[in-house]
Amino acid sequence: MGPGPTMVHERILQASARPTIGHLDSAFVGLMDEIKQLLQYTFQTSNSMTMPISAPGSAGMEACFVNLVEPGDQVIVCINGVFGHRMKENVERCGAKAIVVEDGWGSPVSLDKVRQAFINNPDASILAFVHAETSTGVLSDAKGLAQIAHDHGALVIVDAVTSLGGVPIRVDEWSLDAVYSGSQKCLSCFPGLSPVTFGEAALERIKNRKKKVQSWFLDLNLVMGYWSGEGKSAGRSYHHTAPVNSLYALHESLVMLHEEGIENTWSRHHANHKELAAGLEKLGLTLLVKETHRLPQLNAVNIPDGLIDGEIRALLLRDFELEIGGGLGDLAGKIWRIGLMGETCRSQNVNTCLNALGKVLGSESVTKVA
Amino acid sequence: MGPGPTMVHERILQASARPTIGHLDSAFVGLMDEIKQLLQYTFQTSNSMTMPISAPGSAGMEACFVNLVEPGDQVIVCINGVFGHRMKENVERCGAKAIVVEDGWGSPVSLDKVRQAFINNPDASILAFVHAETSTGVLSDAKGLAQIAHDHGALVIVDAVTSLGGVPIRVDEWSLDAVYSGSQKCLSCFPGLSPVTFGEAALERIKNRKKKVQSWFLDLNLVMGYWSGEGKSAGRSYHHTAPVNSLYALHESLVMLHEEGIENTWSRHHANHKELAAGLEKLGLTLLVKETHRLPQLNAVNIPDGLIDGEIRALLLRDFELEIGGGLGDLAGKIWRIGLMGETCRSQNVNTCLNALGKVLGSESVTKVA
Repeated sequence: MGPGPTMVHERILQASARPTIGHLDSAFVGLMDEIKQLLQYTFQTSNSMTMPISAPGSAGMEACFVNLVEPGDQVIVCINGVFGHRMKENVERCGAKAIVVEDGWGSPVSLDKVRQAFINNPDASILAFVHAETSTGVLSDAKGLAQIAHDHGALVIVDAVTSLGGVPIRVDEWSLDAVYSGSQKCLSCFPGLSPVTFGEAALERIKNRKKKVQSWFLDLNLVMGYWSGEGKSAGRSYHHTAPVNSLYALHESLVMLHEEGIENTWSRHHANHKELAAGLEKLGLTLLVKETHRLPQLNAVNIPDGLIDGEIRALLLRDFELEIGGGLGDLAGKIWRIGLMGETCRSQNVNTCLNALGKVLGSESVTKVA
Repeated sequence: MGPGPTMVHERILQASARPTIGHLDSAFVGLMDEIKQLLQYTFQTSNSMTMPISAPGSAGMEACFVNLVEPGDQVIVCINGVFGHRMKENVERCGAKAIVVEDGWGSPVSLDKVRQAFINNPDASILAFVHAETSTGVLSDAKGLAQIAHDHGALVIVDAVTSLGGVPIRVDEWSLDAVYSGSQKCLSCFPGLSPVTFGEAALERIKNRKKKVQSWFLDLNLVMGYWSGEGKSAGRSYHHTAPVNSLYALHESLVMLHEEGIENTWSRHHANHKELAAGLEKLGLTLLVKETHRLPQLNAVNIPDGLIDGEIRALLLRDFELEIGGGLGDLAGKIWRIGLMGETCRSQNVNTCLNALGKVLGSESVTKVA
C-alpha cells in the first residue's frame, strides 16, 4: 500500500508470461490497436495520438517536453511537490525558460497565481502542472488550469501518472493537450510503460517545430510511424523494438479496467478512501491535505510527534507484511503515504492497514521521542 | 528465427510473472546487485557503471550519446548498415558534428578508413561503431577499432545490441569505453531493457561536461544514484520507477547464461551457425557476408533471383510456423535474415529451418518472376 507500484492481479502477471512474438507480427499489431483503443477509453479521448511510451513515466514526461518545447520557449511550471520540480528540470534541459509558480507541499496549484503568471509573462506558450501529486496526495484542478492556459493561447502538459484510473480525468472535455501517465499506479500493471495522449493543437505545434526533437527515442514523429500504421500489419515502420511482454500485461490491465467500467473504478477509489480516512481519524491520525483536495488513491498521513518514521514502517512490514510509503523531499520523516491504487484499492486492504497501524501505534514497545 | 526478439525460455517467462514488489524494497535491491554482477560477467568487465537502462536498446544507444557527447563535439560515426545511421542521428541531435565513415552494407567497418578519418579530423573525440550489424549480419573488429580511437586520444561508443552473448566481446580487455546492448537478442530475454557499461575514461568525460545531459531520464549521474547506492538498501536515491517484472526476467536470463558459461554460449552459436551455413549452401543459397566477417547469430541470405520475398516468408509462417526476417533499407527484398540468437540457437531449429526452406523453395506452387 505504498505510492506505487501497486499490487498486480494474477491475470496481469500471467499475461506477461505469454510467449514472446515479434514486434512487427500481425497478431501483435492487432494487440497494439486494442491497447490504443483501451487507452483512449481510459483517457476519455478520441485522440489518435494515444499510446504507451516504451519506458517508465519519467520517459513519458520527457516525451511531452522534448516534443513540445523548443529552445527559447517560456514555460510556466507549477511546483507543489517533487514532480513539479522534475518538470522544471525537463524544461531547462530543452533549453527553454521555466517560469515557476510555487504552492506549498500539500496544497493544490493556485489558479490565481497561474493567471497572474500569464499576465506577467505574456509570451509563455505552455503551462505544465501535476494533476495528482504523488509526493503529497493533492489533486489540482486540471480543467480550470487548462482553461486559463487556453485563454492565454498556451497549451498544457499534464502529469497524470497517479491520477489516471483513480480520479476522473477527461482529456477531450477538459481540452488537455498533452498528458502522460504510468502503468504501475491506478492501472495496476507493473512498472515500465507510460501511456501518453496528444491532442490536435499539440500535434500542430510539433509539426511546426524549427528544430528536430532532441531525443531520437522519444521523437513522436518516429514513434507514431510504428504505433499508427493505418491498419497495415507488417507495413508499420520499425522504430524501436517494443517491450512485447510488458505490453501483454498493460493490455490485460486495461481490459480489466474496461470490464469494471471507468466510472465504477473511480467510485471504488472514492469509497475506499472515505473508509480509510474515517479509520485513520479514529486512530487519532490527521491527513496532510484538506478534504477538498485529497487524492483518494494516495493518502498522506501526518506522522504524530515523537514517533520515528522508519521504525513504524519497519514494524508494519515485519509484523503485518504491509508496505506503506514514506515522505519525499521536505516531507521525509513527516508523513506516510498510503496508496489505494487500482488492485490495491480494496476494502479488505483498508481494514488490514487500519488494523496494523492501530496495533503498531498502540504497542508499548514503539520508541517515543520526547 | 528472425533478427530478434528471440524465443524466450519458459523459466524467463515465468520469472516475469512473479509478484511485483517495490523498486526500493531491500529484496529488490539485492536482485539489482545480482543483475549488475551478472552483466559484468556477460560484458567481461569490472566496470562499476554496468546496469540495464529501463527501456529498449534504442534508449541505451541514446544514453551513451547524450551522456558522452556535447554540442560542438566531433564524432566519427561508422555506417555499414541501418544502425550506424541511427548513431549519426543521435550525434546530430546532441548538437555535435558527425563525421561519417561509410562501408558497404554487408562489409565490416574498415580500419584503414577510420585511421584516415582521425588523421583528417584530429579534433574528433569519439568513435562510434556497430559491433554486430543486425541489418546485414556483419561483425566488425571492435578491438582493432578501439585501439585506433585510443591512439588518437578518442573514446569509443560501441553498439553491442546483437553481439552480446552471441560472439566474444571483452569490454575490459579491448578497452571499450561505452557499450550498449538489448535484452531481446542473444540474452534471450524479452524486449524492453538495454544493458550498458561505462569505463573510467567515459565517466571522467561525463564528470567534466560543461552542459547538463539533455535527457533527464537518461542522465547517468541520476540513474547511478539509484543503481549504485553502495549497499544501502532503502537508502538508494529514487530516480525513476524501475520496470520490476522485466528485471525479474532479465535476471533469470542472465542466470541461465551464467549456468551455461559464456564461452560455451559463444561456442554453441558458432557451431549452429556452421551447421546452418552448410545446409543453406546445400540448398543452393548464398550468404551476403564473406565467411571471415559473418555473425553466427544473424545470417543474411541472398534471395535467389525470381523469388518474391514476402511470398516465401508468408509460406514459411503459414505452413511451418517459422518466422525469419526480411531485409531493411537498401536490402529490403534482397535478403532474408535468419536469427540464431540465444534460446533460438538450437540444432533442432537449424534443422527445422533448413527443412522448411527446402520444401518451400522446392515447391512448384511458388511464384517465379522472369
